[in-house]
Amino acid sequence: MAMRVLIWNEGRHEKQNPKVAEIYPNGIHGAIAAHLKKFPEFQVSTATLDDAEQGCSQRSLNETDVLLWWGHMHHDDVADAAVDRMQKRVLAGMGLIVLHSGHFSKIFRRLMGTTCNLKWREAAEKEILWVTRPGHPIVEGIDDHFVIPVEEMYGEYFDVPEPMETVLISSFAGGEVFRSGLTFTRGAGRIFYFRPGHEMYPTYHDRNVLKIIENAARWAAPTWPAKAVSFGNRKMGWM
Amino acid sequence: MAMRVLIWNEGRHEKQNPKVAEIYPNGIHGAIAAHLKKFPEFQVSTATLDDAEQGCSQRSLNETDVLLWWGHMHHDDVADAAVDRMQKRVLAGMGLIVLHSGHFSKIFRRLMGTTCNLKWREAAEKEILWVTRPGHPIVEGIDDHFVIPVEEMYGEYFDVPEPMETVLISSFAGGEVFRSGLTFTRGAGRIFYFRPGHEMYPTYHDRNVLKIIENAARWAAPTWPAKAVSFGNRKMGWM
Amino acid sequence: MAMRVLIWNEGRHEKQNPKVAEIYPNGIHGAIAAHLKKFPEFQVSTATLDDAEQGCSQRSLNETDVLLWWGHMHHDDVADAAVDRMQKRVLAGMGLIVLHSGHFSKIFRRLMGTTCNLKWREAAEKEILWVTRPGHPIVEGIDDHFVIPVEEMYGEYFDVPEPMETVLISSFAGGEVFRSGLTFTRGAGRIFYFRPGHEMYPTYHDRNVLKIIENAARWAAPTWPAKAVSFGNRKMGWM
Amino acid sequence: MAMRVLIWNEGRHEKQNPKVAEIYPNGIHGAIAAHLKKFPEFQVSTATLDDAEQGCSQRSLNETDVLLWWGHMHHDDVADAAVDRMQKRVLAGMGLIVLHSGHFSKIFRRLMGTTCNLKWREAAEKEILWVTRPGHPIVEGIDDHFVIPVEEMYGEYFDVPEPMETVLISSFAGGEVFRSGLTFTRGAGRIFYFRPGHEMYPTYHDRNVLKIIENAARWAAPTWPAKAVSFGNRKMGWM
Repeated sequence: MAMRVLIWNEGRHEKQNPKVAEIYPNGIHGAIAAHLKKFPEFQVSTATLDDAEQGCSQRSLNETDVLLWWGHMHHDDVADAAVDRMQKRVLAGMGLIVLHSGHFSKIFRRLMGTTCNLKWREAAEKEILWVTRPGHPIVEGIDDHFVIPVEEMYGEYFDVPEPMETVLISSFAGGEVFRSGLTFTRGAGRIFYFRPGHEMYPTYHDRNVLKIIENAARWAAPTWPAKAVSFGNRKMGWM
Repeated sequence: MAMRVLIWNEGRHEKQNPKVAEIYPNGIHGAIAAHLKKFPEFQVSTATLDDAEQGCSQRSLNETDVLLWWGHMHHDDVADAAVDRMQKRVLAGMGLIVLHSGHFSKIFRRLMGTTCNLKWREAAEKEILWVTRPGHPIVEGIDDHFVIPVEEMYGEYFDVPEPMETVLISSFAGGEVFRSGLTFTRGAGRIFYFRPGHEMYPTYHDRNVLKIIENAARWAAPTWPAKAVSFGNRKMGWM
Repeated sequence: MAMRVLIWNEGRHEKQNPKVAEIYPNGIHGAIAAHLKKFPEFQVSTATLDDAEQGCSQRSLNETDVLLWWGHMHHDDVADAAVDRMQKRVLAGMGLIVLHSGHFSKIFRRLMGTTCNLKWREAAEKEILWVTRPGHPIVEGIDDHFVIPVEEMYGEYFDVPEPMETVLISSFAGGEVFRSGLTFTRGAGRIFYFRPGHEMYPTYHDRNVLKIIENAARWAAPTWPAKAVSFGNRKMGWM
Repeated sequence: MAMRVLIWNEGRHEKQNPKVAEIYPNGIHGAIAAHLKKFPEFQVSTATLDDAEQGCSQRSLNETDVLLWWGHMHHDDVADAAVDRMQKRVLAGMGLIVLHSGHFSKIFRRLMGTTCNLKWREAAEKEILWVTRPGHPIVEGIDDHFVIPVEEMYGEYFDVPEPMETVLISSFAGGEVFRSGLTFTRGAGRIFYFRPGHEMYPTYHDRNVLKIIENAARWAAPTWPAKAVSFGNRKMGWM
């Protein structure tokens, strides 16, 4: 069964900053889509903030198994009604992969219940990502560590609830550390936060980064169409 | 050091329903306060929805170490700004004990990121609560189980994230089960959800229920005044 | 890719007790195998304590993706060397499904680090299992609850570490509750404990029980052959 | 009520290596004891492998609320019977703080169910420890990070089960990272693993390291003398 993946990108850096457009001529979403389209089990779509219904209409979410989310400058422009829709779909089983600066997105903060705040630095520094759950589906094919030569730094404390699993931890040339790959569940939905991906660096052309996103999409996809959960009033005498 | 406990109660059932007023002449908050006041380490206050600033002003929250929350009919009347304040205080270390129908309160749903929905039945049935973390501070002095002769039923699925610890599980005469004592952390704050407490039954006069609330208040209280967490931009060269 | 499932059963009740043999003419392992063999993605083998190398030789474990374990009277007969082998394979990614009285098996206690003790009663009583993680792969196709008309009771406290996920909770006619479906990970291996399955009752002919075992086998199977993890001394200057 | 802390140290490096003896003239246990003795709420004892009953007799464990454990070269010399005793006491509520190379101790591996293996390097390099649970009792008084100028490196993957809480993560000058402060519970007992503490460096004279050990001792101490848990056969008709 095909996994329907929707890659959502704010999509404005690429229009406003020629440097970003040079690295990502088809947008960050385009770079990720190009990789995922290599695999026939994924049915890949993309959407951006400036699309109709902000690219996340009820209809399009209903047809999505895994949603990837990259945002940065315009989190607050995303309508609360869109966030309500997304939360509902995650609870019903849609996977969610939150990328890099998406940590401050409304949907991630909604699902975490915390500020999702962190430390940061744009200094084009080296990031080393260490695998802390070897054998996990998300790190299939990844060595015990890999290096991204040039990245933005994110540093702890990362204000999220204790994750279900800590899959990757980064160290940065400047001395900071960060839990860079974290899994959560909310309702029937699986959530993966994945740190790398500053718009000014070619991170989404990196072989390991793309492999992890690909793995995470498979991991987050619901394995079955969960039925609506039964809540509410319940009479005696049923047993 | 005294633990400053604020017991918040919607406080309207008691005014509108003589039966509730008979069971809780001083309100649900009053019944809980009467118990906690026996212990000199607690400095107990109470507040209700109809108090100034809905009983949870910034000032009053600033002076609270542990907030107990009982609400039922009027969750939506609680101002979003109040919920923002409470969330901030929890992340900064204030303990939160959510009681019974408080599962649907704005603050609990905000911190959980889920619907917090469940099954229910008002049939005055027997509830048996089983301890699933013996030795936990919250069940100090509690046997391996205890019985509440007459209670409202809450049944699974309870739509909350996986808890840090499952401390109590209930079975009901009607056949349902419920995770009735659950711990979570969000930021520096410890959260305890405790199921029993329907307004029509004398649950908050029950010895075991009061003991667990008393224990939970001690457990949830911050052991030190955590400093503001450092977030944001950070320069190179600090090490 | 076929999932190689090895169903291990102590296999002595069936030889010694005609009543058990009547319910499980091919053994408990045979009943489970008959179900799993319906699905071409499973490559099913069975083994018992009285087989060569106690049915869990290094070679046979090496060729196993998911090990199911049922034991009861003769846990201590399982050689420590066999337990060492199994633990190593689980840490390397082999799934493990521990059934019913297997809670006291050496391999489960080894992986949990606790006594795995519990309360019990043989009174042919009704068990109701409630789903507490709707949408989880292990409960695919299962309603919000199901009933086993006649079972042995297991009651809390169940002395295991906090699980990764609580998937099922049982209530018993006698009033007890039990966390009946629990997931854990150890190293690269996924572990599922599943409560039902007393040898005197036809539990392993129950449609829901078999479906959950089938689901759990898929869930526990490694999705990729994890490489040996790199440990030990590491020089400077590698970056 | 005084917390009875027993600091157990293998205690042989100090006898065999003059350099270690110079840094720790009273042993590693002595250095830690000297700090804890400043606080009247701790009643501090020390013990070493060469003491009678290996320094962990049943009687001495019975009188211990929190056990600190440092071992390195002679883990296998610790009698299995001693490990049985310790495990039982932890499950009954005794706190356990495992220090540095104690990761390979029999008691820690017993309680974790995994190999507890890791990467390491003795290169006298700088370690930076980052707080990943600000507000947690274990990091009371600790800044958002602190530096140990000279330490042995431990690197991920650290083969332990997912912790309850990740409190500290280290980065090393050589580029590795490590989850350096981890909490677990087993039965009624709280467990803290704390990474720093190579015998060749003055780590146990470091202000921050000592403060964390002091905090952890308070956190791990049982708040009440948990009663024996009730297990085993249980009759019908009790409710």
